[in-house]
Amino acid sequence: MMRGRSLVNRIAASIAALALLMAGHAATAEDGYALWLRYAPLTGSAKERLDQFNPVVVQTGEADPSVKVAEEELRRGLTGLLGHVPASSGGSPIVLACNDGSSGARGHFNVAAHQQANGRSLLAISAADSVGCLYGAFALLRELSLGRDPATVELAQAPAMPLRMLDHWDNPDGTVERGYAGRSIFDWWHLPEELSPRMIDYARANASIGINGVVVNNVNASPLFLTERYLPKLKRLADAWRPYGIRLYISVRFSAPIEVGGLKTADPLAPQVKAWWKAQAGKLYQAIPDFGGFLVKANSEGQPGPQDYHRTHAQGANMLAAALGNRGTVIWRAFVYASSGETDRVKQAYEEFKPLDGKFAPNVILQVKNGPLDFQPREPFHPLFGAMPHTRMMLEAQITREYLGQATGIVYLAPLWKEVLDAPTGHGATVAQVIEPTGMAGVANTGSDRDWTGDQFDQANWYAFGRLAWSPALSSDQIAREWVGQTFSRNPNFVRQLVPMMLSSRQAVVDYMTPLGLAHQMGTGHHYGPAPWVCTLDRPEWNPCYYNRADAEGIGFDRTRSGSDALAQYAPSVAAQWADPRTMDENDLLWFHHLPWSYRTQSGKSLWDELISRYDRGVAAVDSMAREWQTLQPYVDHERFVDVASSLAIQRKEARWWRDASIAYWQSLNHLPLPAGERPPEHSLSYYEALEFPDAPG
Amino acid sequence: MMRGRSLVNRIAASIAALALLMAGHAATAEDGYALWLRYAPLTGSAKERLDQFNPVVVQTGEADPSVKVAEEELRRGLTGLLGHVPASSGGSPIVLACNDGSSGARGHFNVAAHQQANGRSLLAISAADSVGCLYGAFALLRELSLGRDPATVELAQAPAMPLRMLDHWDNPDGTVERGYAGRSIFDWWHLPEELSPRMIDYARANASIGINGVVVNNVNASPLFLTERYLPKLKRLADAWRPYGIRLYISVRFSAPIEVGGLKTADPLAPQVKAWWKAQAGKLYQAIPDFGGFLVKANSEGQPGPQDYHRTHAQGANMLAAALGNRGTVIWRAFVYASSGETDRVKQAYEEFKPLDGKFAPNVILQVKNGPLDFQPREPFHPLFGAMPHTRMMLEAQITREYLGQATGIVYLAPLWKEVLDAPTGHGATVAQVIEPTGMAGVANTGSDRDWTGDQFDQANWYAFGRLAWSPALSSDQIAREWVGQTFSRNPNFVRQLVPMMLSSRQAVVDYMTPLGLAHQMGTGHHYGPAPWVCTLDRPEWNPCYYNRADAEGIGFDRTRSGSDALAQYAPSVAAQWADPRTMDENDLLWFHHLPWSYRTQSGKSLWDELISRYDRGVAAVDSMAREWQTLQPYVDHERFVDVASSLAIQRKEARWWRDASIAYWQSLNHLPLPAGERPPEHSLSYYEALEFPDAPG
Repeated sequence: MMRGRSLVNRIAASIAALALLMAGHAATAEDGYALWLRYAPLTGSAKERLDQFNPVVVQTGEADPSVKVAEEELRRGLTGLLGHVPASSGGSPIVLACNDGSSGARGHFNVAAHQQANGRSLLAISAADSVGCLYGAFALLRELSLGRDPATVELAQAPAMPLRMLDHWDNPDGTVERGYAGRSIFDWWHLPEELSPRMIDYARANASIGINGVVVNNVNASPLFLTERYLPKLKRLADAWRPYGIRLYISVRFSAPIEVGGLKTADPLAPQVKAWWKAQAGKLYQAIPDFGGFLVKANSEGQPGPQDYHRTHAQGANMLAAALGNRGTVIWRAFVYASSGETDRVKQAYEEFKPLDGKFAPNVILQVKNGPLDFQPREPFHPLFGAMPHTRMMLEAQITREYLGQATGIVYLAPLWKEVLDAPTGHGATVAQVIEPTGMAGVANTGSDRDWTGDQFDQANWYAFGRLAWSPALSSDQIAREWVGQTFSRNPNFVRQLVPMMLSSRQAVVDYMTPLGLAHQMGTGHHYGPAPWVCTLDRPEWNPCYYNRADAEGIGFDRTRSGSDALAQYAPSVAAQWADPRTMDENDLLWFHHLPWSYRTQSGKSLWDELISRYDRGVAAVDSMAREWQTLQPYVDHERFVDVASSLAIQRKEARWWRDASIAYWQSLNHLPLPAGERPPEHSLSYYEALEFPDAPG
Repeated sequence: MMRGRSLVNRIAASIAALALLMAGHAATAEDGYALWLRYAPLTGSAKERLDQFNPVVVQTGEADPSVKVAEEELRRGLTGLLGHVPASSGGSPIVLACNDGSSGARGHFNVAAHQQANGRSLLAISAADSVGCLYGAFALLRELSLGRDPATVELAQAPAMPLRMLDHWDNPDGTVERGYAGRSIFDWWHLPEELSPRMIDYARANASIGINGVVVNNVNASPLFLTERYLPKLKRLADAWRPYGIRLYISVRFSAPIEVGGLKTADPLAPQVKAWWKAQAGKLYQAIPDFGGFLVKANSEGQPGPQDYHRTHAQGANMLAAALGNRGTVIWRAFVYASSGETDRVKQAYEEFKPLDGKFAPNVILQVKNGPLDFQPREPFHPLFGAMPHTRMMLEAQITREYLGQATGIVYLAPLWKEVLDAPTGHGATVAQVIEPTGMAGVANTGSDRDWTGDQFDQANWYAFGRLAWSPALSSDQIAREWVGQTFSRNPNFVRQLVPMMLSSRQAVVDYMTPLGLAHQMGTGHHYGPAPWVCTLDRPEWNPCYYNRADAEGIGFDRTRSGSDALAQYAPSVAAQWADPRTMDENDLLWFHHLPWSYRTQSGKSLWDELISRYDRGVAAVDSMAREWQTLQPYVDHERFVDVASSLAIQRKEARWWRDASIAYWQSLNHLPLPAGERPPEHSLSYYEALEFPDAPG
């Protein structure tokens, strides 16, 4: 078909005029899979210092699996940071001493540089146990990744709390409740034969931030996890994670004795029920000697529980605790609310659990969400914190952004968690101090997406959760700097610009979604997008209108004495401060107070004008993030630059939608004009009301 | 906590005794993502030849996007094969001439080496259009990847059929019907803002094997794809794929005019229905000028269709064809069966469609599955092939292994498809000849798993489908060699050992699942595992017992004149051959004949003994694959070696399960003893019957 030589000549003649070949590159794409364990080559003086130090990872020859993985990680990390495999002799040794005779919290470590007789340095990582050594290795790599001088490094750390957990709301069929990053990372179907390499990278990431417990399945629990078929699957995972200091837990369904045990009842006081759970625990311990225990969601949102048999939560939890014995823990969730709308929903957990203080077995922990409602962009802290002095209590945070825009844009959650952790309960301790003897759990945001979290910046929330569970005293700023430096770039200009964006991003999402203490205004079911108008769902407390209580006159939920009096569940000093809208932090204003649209806020503006200015501030903040990100292009690889830019484009769209739909609805009630110069909503209220998302994820 | 200097001394003193550092490596994991476009560095004489040739990719400066991606792929591929970026001058130029004035099938190309006046070679890729050039570039890279000498390469190829399509059974919420490789690769939720880089790699993989059409959504179609919200999403994908020669199609729901159009009817003869579809097509063409058309599953398995309005399939298809006009195509599926069990299910498509021959508009294609039932491990070819001379007909194959063990182990499907393509229809043409004027579609096996197909070896099925659609004359052996060489290793010992394993793997799965013409014995719903005993489902033809018709006396489905007479739908020459169990290929024996357990097969054994020997042969074949794979470890990277070994471990388990459960059931009917020395089933029949898989994927 080609006309031979003439064509060749034609082509040959034109070759000289052709432009030079662009350099192809086969390098690995920066797809985010490496997380903060990217170990990008150092540059500049940091590189010079590490080159000069010339680290040698000393192989101890110890058989301990945690020591082995620590050594492996040091070699991997240094290879990345140096840009080549580290020397095997002749440099400064890094040595692990994992049985240094010290006492203290499990997992503590020291890292210190010493001068040897030969003039070379020596870096010693010492700990009382091998997992402490592993934590020390990761901590050292973090410092080196951030450009610290290996010759002067000096770290002495111990975890602030014993339990630092991730809760996965993952189902056996691979779906993830409130998951926005693809399918579950757990491939139950092919376990135990196949263990995805991702399960090891997951453990590395967790160990690097101190996570030491993982609940592998949804709190709306499938009884499958208690069947014979799942036992070897669970065992394979637990075995793979043990070297990384991670214990495996499962969520259990309270009625499992009926569903998979063949019993007629799940009454916690029935002897056959007790025996069945004891047998289950026995099988689990036989397969997994360090099995962590059970997480339980009982008598909440349709889940079965002890109240089905007129037993208390304590009776239910204690029965499971007895089955586990002193080797394992029952983590009992305090997230309950009744199906009748009689009581203000935010009051119900306190009413239910406060009277049970002191009634739980020693190996039961009550797991309390950060706020009394449900993982909103902002909530006041949960009144149970500090209110049950005779009960072990841990905090449940949500890393996955169910109500905060899910997996798009930039929403850095450390400020949200810090706000709660630092809150004085009025019972003589901050929330952090209340939970430090016990722990923190975060609802994971991981999925099968290549970047793990569906969005590059949501990796920062996984990281921040682990770091705060390790040390609630760390600042949001410090954690963001660490994450940015390890994950993207150590360039000081880049860090200086990006970190403030991250720090202000959570207030932005509050502002454009639910400013001034509004809550639960999200679309029904999927919780995506605005739906403040929804008022027809069966259960009153499922309706956004239940929470906004907006009408022609005003807006907000009166939780003072004249209303639901939820305020009374807080310590008197706290309640007193919040009882007066004029003295309280207006960020929580409408959470506690129903106020007229004309109410004069602290800014001097009317409530209506202030509300609109907050929406605008949120929209402007997202616009500003998107603009700033464009200027950061020189510092970021092409693939992640485009990925984040696209994600911010979606967030910009969503911020406008939230503002416009919300304003359109409030205006339909109060008929107030917009302040001068304000942009009216882009569409009519009926347009926003008609939007449907049957394909929403999660 | 560390006791200072004494510890340091202790450590320092022991350093000398420590073993040397193992080499760390930061190299990219071989996770299968690269598919057959891995471009691993050449070695030995192949490397010497390519180094000596010293290819220079000449940048034509043409603005054509397909030419650009061809140049980019050549640079990427050569960089991999050479182990460095190719030279930009001074070597042998590779030039693209993409408008060579030739005629012929769209997509044809020539690749030829020429000697230049200066003594250096020149490689010319010429074609009538830029997509032909892209195909030529991929073909050249394939040859080079397999070690061919660039100085003597000579290729002249043209696609055998115009439509080479993938059908995705992917839903807008990310689930995939019959998907075993994670979620959908299409992220509808974040489109159009976010275009995953995977969408480009997907297009590269498809273009490299000549795929030129993609139906992006499930034939059980969501009407969402016809809403305004999805139009920009579809456009973004079509734009991204256009340079790769891929046209986008969608599956449509016949009742969409009611569901998203607000009409009261979907009657194809109603003027408002016609107008609505015309408007939809208009919007699609406006966004996507080369929009491919609609795939339709109508009046089948509960889907709506023209028969709901007492119209024929032809009336329904022709209405949509008129809406599309001559720019697009309606692909109408022939997979229909009625909800009453009156007629043998395998006869129904023929009975329905044969009378409509000649009644379809010119831009309608009837899409016919390879066999008359439903993608079984083995079926005789579909009797419609060759029986509708006045109708355009294409073949539908299933790449995803719904009924063939899903995504575990090794089951190479090229032999299955070749068996069908090469079958003489008795109407004067083979199946391949019947469909060559039109095309082939394969139900995709892709998903979000890192290796794309859930199993390394299922990549070979995607590859083989594309290669056979390009040229049905290629042998299964040739295609396997190409795939193995590009994907794993060119080592001749490796190829020599692995390719025969692949070639025999499909017969193995037939043998251990449904030997001797048995069909549809799989578990209800998920089609995973054996369930020959199931006989209580609502529709008779959903029951495995409907197909095996086994009892105390015998087994098999009589489709001769004494039975359902499905044989009469075949050409007389074919029917005559198959009517006699003594002359026909026993691979299809029980598909057409009900025979006593004592029937003497061609081997001389009784049917019962022969059946058992086939199960055993299947189990032994899988054992043998697993053993052989172990010996191939030296040739394969660690990650993929372990991955495949784990997958084969599952397949071994499944093969035993199939054999044992099937034999246990047949024995419960015929009470025949096992032949001497035969291993009895591991468990009782009731054990197998009780197995449940609520967590099965797909």
